[in-house]
Amino acid sequence: MAKVNRNYLKLPGSYLFSDIGKKVRAYEEAHPEAKVIRLGIGDVTQPLCPAVIEALHKATDEMSSKDTFKGYAPDLGYEFLRNVIAEKDFKENGCDISADEIFVSDGAKCDCGNIQEIFSEDNTIAVCDPVYPVYVDSNVMAGRCGDYDDVRGLFSKVIYMPCDASNNFVPEFPEKVPDLIYLCFPNNPTGAVITKDRLQEWVDYANKNHSVILYDAAYEAYISEENVPHSIYECEGARECAIEFRSFSKTAGFTGLRLGFTVIPKDLKVEGVSLWNLWARRHGTKYNGAPYIVQRAGEAVYSEEGRTQVKQQIAYYMENAKLILEGLKAAGYEVHGGVNAPYIWLRTPQGMTSWEFFDYLLTKANVVGTPGVGFGPHGENYFRLTAFGDRDNTIEALSRIKAM
Amino acid sequence: MAKVNRNYLKLPGSYLFSDIGKKVRAYEEAHPEAKVIRLGIGDVTQPLCPAVIEALHKATDEMSSKDTFKGYAPDLGYEFLRNVIAEKDFKENGCDISADEIFVSDGAKCDCGNIQEIFSEDNTIAVCDPVYPVYVDSNVMAGRCGDYDDVRGLFSKVIYMPCDASNNFVPEFPEKVPDLIYLCFPNNPTGAVITKDRLQEWVDYANKNHSVILYDAAYEAYISEENVPHSIYECEGARECAIEFRSFSKTAGFTGLRLGFTVIPKDLKVEGVSLWNLWARRHGTKYNGAPYIVQRAGEAVYSEEGRTQVKQQIAYYMENAKLILEGLKAAGYEVHGGVNAPYIWLRTPQGMTSWEFFDYLLTKANVVGTPGVGFGPHGENYFRLTAFGDRDNTIEALSRIKAM
Repeated sequence: MAKVNRNYLKLPGSYLFSDIGKKVRAYEEAHPEAKVIRLGIGDVTQPLCPAVIEALHKATDEMSSKDTFKGYAPDLGYEFLRNVIAEKDFKENGCDISADEIFVSDGAKCDCGNIQEIFSEDNTIAVCDPVYPVYVDSNVMAGRCGDYDDVRGLFSKVIYMPCDASNNFVPEFPEKVPDLIYLCFPNNPTGAVITKDRLQEWVDYANKNHSVILYDAAYEAYISEENVPHSIYECEGARECAIEFRSFSKTAGFTGLRLGFTVIPKDLKVEGVSLWNLWARRHGTKYNGAPYIVQRAGEAVYSEEGRTQVKQQIAYYMENAKLILEGLKAAGYEVHGGVNAPYIWLRTPQGMTSWEFFDYLLTKANVVGTPGVGFGPHGENYFRLTAFGDRDNTIEALSRIKAM
Repeated sequence: MAKVNRNYLKLPGSYLFSDIGKKVRAYEEAHPEAKVIRLGIGDVTQPLCPAVIEALHKATDEMSSKDTFKGYAPDLGYEFLRNVIAEKDFKENGCDISADEIFVSDGAKCDCGNIQEIFSEDNTIAVCDPVYPVYVDSNVMAGRCGDYDDVRGLFSKVIYMPCDASNNFVPEFPEKVPDLIYLCFPNNPTGAVITKDRLQEWVDYANKNHSVILYDAAYEAYISEENVPHSIYECEGARECAIEFRSFSKTAGFTGLRLGFTVIPKDLKVEGVSLWNLWARRHGTKYNGAPYIVQRAGEAVYSEEGRTQVKQQIAYYMENAKLILEGLKAAGYEVHGGVNAPYIWLRTPQGMTSWEFFDYLLTKANVVGTPGVGFGPHGENYFRLTAFGDRDNTIEALSRIKAM
């Protein structure tokens, strides 16, 4: 008799963004005249840049002719892409990462969700609280998280590392040493960053304790300040303890195109076993590569033209972030993030809960954001807005918020 | 201290197609004058058809403009694609499958590899022997297969269903009832098909025993004969016991474009739990959708123009299959498959082992095929050739084989 994976049943009812979607739809149906502005889900709004579009057209033409047609991609991804990533993202920033330590994939979400698979089921995980839900949910599915406490909103076996204004949203070392440590900087949802010195301490901590750091750097392109590491491999010893995830989604507007990559240094061994080998085996068995045309599009992001265009797009979003930050400050809000990240993390006014503020903002200003508590209990009384909107909408949203 | 998933270490050394690649490279280096023809790995060689190319260009243009740009895709895939799949692949063939029972993905390999995750770790699996390696390997990684016996080439907890000429390469019901049953028809590697009556017996068997059938129909477009089911949902009761995997890879040459889908009927419950719900949760947590432009390309496969062009491509490959079949028969070989599938399964001459014949074919005819034993012990003394080559190469390969 077939049986289900009962770990799935431990996941709390529904997904944060589905709940938000339902509430917004219900509001729009009841108020068809309202012009709702969405600054909730982290999806981009600007079109792909010309260099990327050109690469897509060109690669598509290649697929139309027998002599240039491409079938299955190489397991790790095409060399033309891995070479340029190794060069521009790592070597140029002083990181010792080679092209064959890069696994091209269809996005950081998939890789962040799947990476736990190569580790033992009884490994403990540590996550920031608040946190991007995929890290915990994928471990719940694998049976690593124990039971869910409805009241506290926590899983019994997960080591939560509270992040709030008191620690600048950067976690302290937990009391109990975790086996796997998820870190994401620039952070989703708080927009916080970690200094290079502090990240070095985490790397040392991991090496000392034989823990592995799973480093999500999906938002590194938004870093504007000095002494904020773009890659964990800027730290000494990271090749022995860290896996890094990167994404083209927010860097180059690829949310609908799907491309990312994961870095596993060949020096990274656990119990003497190479994690590179395990991930290569997983990649080869359960994955079949990102589309050739999309890998060519990714390559175009690194061309001179592409880099300039992509920087302009990021500058556009960061101008939104600045508008939101300054607008909210002027309106008396306590705000965080938004300087090295496309996320603004604000404290809800007058002690409102995250969901109370969600309703308040939706009904009074017709603006949609994300309740902080949706990312974990320490997100309660916080709220996330994103800078990925259209400029006019962002300005309009701000003026409505100020008028509330 | 981090620990690895030790199940990974139970996987035998290396992957079949890597071994083949190494041998071929070594031969080519030693014999640079040899013109090696590859009829081994199942990758297509013909370019994407004009309707698909046109759709890719059009969708790319949409991505270049703010008003038509698409970010994250809907969780299940775009409705325009799911609707046309439900209509053309299922309703037109009398199968009661609706658009919201279709999960669009980046390929059947990923789905076939990941599906086991929603089932209990102690479920037993049954596979045909020989078999496409992904089914077993993904279950080994999850700890469902016990230990590997190097000598016999079998995992201790897997229920193997021998398929050879004596049963027309269609499995009998195993002695012990499995919880999960992997079936693939038209079959890779044997090219065999199952009749609708026989598949109905398997559906009845699964329903009686509360087993789930995982039905890989990636090659259904190659079916040329009557009374061969294109979908398991042609059978009564399949909605209560079967999941079906489909691919655009071999249907429309999408191996380098990546698109497939999985069908989970809403009636399919295990222990009272909806498998649709579990898979939706997995899809939402660990996956982020196939690229918009690729989903538009998939839609184009179903247009009148697209269908005609894709049928021509399949006819081209099947003409190759016919040439191989008839050529080998004329040369005195015992051959199977190749009528409803792009694979030709031949018995090695003079009792040679699969690998002996591999070396013989490579050195005497400079033709690369796949040793049957690579798909399982009952593949020993068999050999797979594919019809995906170029016509001229296929003809040349045949004439060399005949001359051996």
